[in-house]
Amino acid sequence: MNRFVYLDHAATTPLDKRVFRVMKPWLTNKFGNPSSFHSPGKEAKDAMEAARVKISKILSCRAEEIIFTSGGTESDNLAILGFARANAASGKHIVVSAIEHHAVLEAANQLEREGFEVMRVLPNADGIVELGAIKAALRPDTILVSVMYANNEIGTIQPISEIGNWLQKYRGEKKYPIFHTDACQAAGALELSVEKLHVDAMTINGSKIYGPKGVGLLYLRKNLRVQPLQFGGAQERGLRPGTENVAGIIGLAVALELADKEKNKEAERLAELRDKLITGILLSVPKTKLNGHATNRLPNNVNISFLDVEGEALMLYLDAKGIFVSTGSACASASLDPSHVLLAIGKSPEEAHGAMRFTLGCSTTDKDVDYVLKVLPPLVEKLRMISSVSINQT
Amino acid sequence: MNRFVYLDHAATTPLDKRVFRVMKPWLTNKFGNPSSFHSPGKEAKDAMEAARVKISKILSCRAEEIIFTSGGTESDNLAILGFARANAASGKHIVVSAIEHHAVLEAANQLEREGFEVMRVLPNADGIVELGAIKAALRPDTILVSVMYANNEIGTIQPISEIGNWLQKYRGEKKYPIFHTDACQAAGALELSVEKLHVDAMTINGSKIYGPKGVGLLYLRKNLRVQPLQFGGAQERGLRPGTENVAGIIGLAVALELADKEKNKEAERLAELRDKLITGILLSVPKTKLNGHATNRLPNNVNISFLDVEGEALMLYLDAKGIFVSTGSACASASLDPSHVLLAIGKSPEEAHGAMRFTLGCSTTDKDVDYVLKVLPPLVEKLRMISSVSINQT
Repeated sequence: MNRFVYLDHAATTPLDKRVFRVMKPWLTNKFGNPSSFHSPGKEAKDAMEAARVKISKILSCRAEEIIFTSGGTESDNLAILGFARANAASGKHIVVSAIEHHAVLEAANQLEREGFEVMRVLPNADGIVELGAIKAALRPDTILVSVMYANNEIGTIQPISEIGNWLQKYRGEKKYPIFHTDACQAAGALELSVEKLHVDAMTINGSKIYGPKGVGLLYLRKNLRVQPLQFGGAQERGLRPGTENVAGIIGLAVALELADKEKNKEAERLAELRDKLITGILLSVPKTKLNGHATNRLPNNVNISFLDVEGEALMLYLDAKGIFVSTGSACASASLDPSHVLLAIGKSPEEAHGAMRFTLGCSTTDKDVDYVLKVLPPLVEKLRMISSVSINQT
Repeated sequence: MNRFVYLDHAATTPLDKRVFRVMKPWLTNKFGNPSSFHSPGKEAKDAMEAARVKISKILSCRAEEIIFTSGGTESDNLAILGFARANAASGKHIVVSAIEHHAVLEAANQLEREGFEVMRVLPNADGIVELGAIKAALRPDTILVSVMYANNEIGTIQPISEIGNWLQKYRGEKKYPIFHTDACQAAGALELSVEKLHVDAMTINGSKIYGPKGVGLLYLRKNLRVQPLQFGGAQERGLRPGTENVAGIIGLAVALELADKEKNKEAERLAELRDKLITGILLSVPKTKLNGHATNRLPNNVNISFLDVEGEALMLYLDAKGIFVSTGSACASASLDPSHVLLAIGKSPEEAHGAMRFTLGCSTTDKDVDYVLKVLPPLVEKLRMISSVSINQT
């Protein structure tokens, strides 16, 4: 029997069947361009605007504060590059956490090339970015702070509401700094009200919440000035021109709605499986360490360092057994550098190289966890034996 | 019986059933992230790379010269903004035609705000951008020329191969100017070999060729330096980071393949219907003028000015009869300004306001054309009567 135990939901999720069902008409007989004034165009426009309203209710914002994009990376870039470029005259300092997704970190690097200064705030050893550290990083010319809601590698949940609330008061009547959060990993599991989170901008991605790939959104508080990444038509208030991905947008809204409706129950179920997997591995495999906070982490995230093991090798061994995991961020997988997140929380390069991420999802069962706990320990042992033999031979 | 005569294929095309069939597995049971190293990821990566190879054969280029994007607007911006920003040290002058799509024109406007100079070359009265006009616009510091392959409003086909060939020789051993063409409208009908066209960059959009919305590509000749619009992961050689829209990319490849296979036969069929519609309108409706070249135009494009008629009003009248047309570019439809294309070919604002675009497609039949020719003349007469009455009353 071929096992298929997909434990890489942080990289991408399958499309929910219910989402596909709602998208399907927009991939078959409905096809208007929302910018066209005729009936097929208006039908597409109406469906897209209904999706926007649906999402705005979940985010507790105005519909017109939702900008549809092609995904999380674009949303992050539109927030970071777009806001900084448009407000450079007011200050050229931005603050990000050191454990952001590359979409934020590389956008920040680009801003440095454009003459900005960037402060990268370190998390504590548990992977939490503390309010105090953000406070200490601010300068009078700081125009933007960006801290991700939940980390994509170690799953730690950041005190977004606390930071946002404080920043709002700190800002008072002034316009800066604004607060952006990348909620790509959090969107399926955590509170998304921008009011409760006190954020001015928030990134969400379809492909991480059982929605389609190639679509995302940026919540952007009204009256924020942002320079578009691309120019052309008047779509998305001119902030994101180009014919809209109607099917994708409709799918994103349904995916977000389902996630929102089911997240509490599902989070409880996943957290139980997560803790069983963590405990099981730590108990049955020697020389293993959990990365990130033990409880203040996403309900689906397990990240463990296997000392004296090459993460890539273990991943391939597990793959052969029908277990699909990753060594870290998919977006950074082309690089063989150790994870910037693990280094930032003080792990050694060796610990980082032996790190393995298991991210559970809607299809994950108790049996799957049992299977991993059965298969994994002998594989690790075997790998360690091979590597010790090869070391002894050289 | 409810008629559904969609004559706005230049705004967007329906998704071909055959394309949907190929996409469907990637919207249901297949879902890996191409950047993941495990089997589901590799499966997605392989399918995406097969799509890239398929497209590269049609474009006569290397597979790695294809960059997948979210659509035509992004591709145009990546070419124009991306190339100009990365090569600004070598020259800050660019040349575009005055009848480009807004994605090119607005990107050029943005470059002006960034300190570049932009020359906008006028077409002749037929809507053709002549090589001589391009030659006259060049300066020693011109780094980029962009001329669309076929115009989205009046359908005129530009002498891309002639311009490209000349530019290649003019450039000789030098690196500049490079030549970009927006082939969004042309892709379903014309030759797409970048070798034959002598282009260095070319934009193609899925949603104009019976492919999915939200996906496009930029052909980018090897070794051209381009600054990405967004930053993050290493996808698309770092030029376009973000999790790839796998289903969309696969759909784009199939759509392009079908278009390429069927374009000759389909172009012949459409040109016949086009000419029947043009002749029919010009003969049966007084005070009408064809916009753009009579024969050197896309096989599916009819653009006619109805004097003393408001284009918007006629569009709505036709809509009520189940005929869906447009007054010009969908991307510019939010604006009530007269078409920049029609003004550029010397039409009066009045002629521009009365312009109507009919763009035929794969579903268009001879009967549809007969129906339009039956319905249209009395509607125009009625509108003219109303407007003359209202003018007399004021």
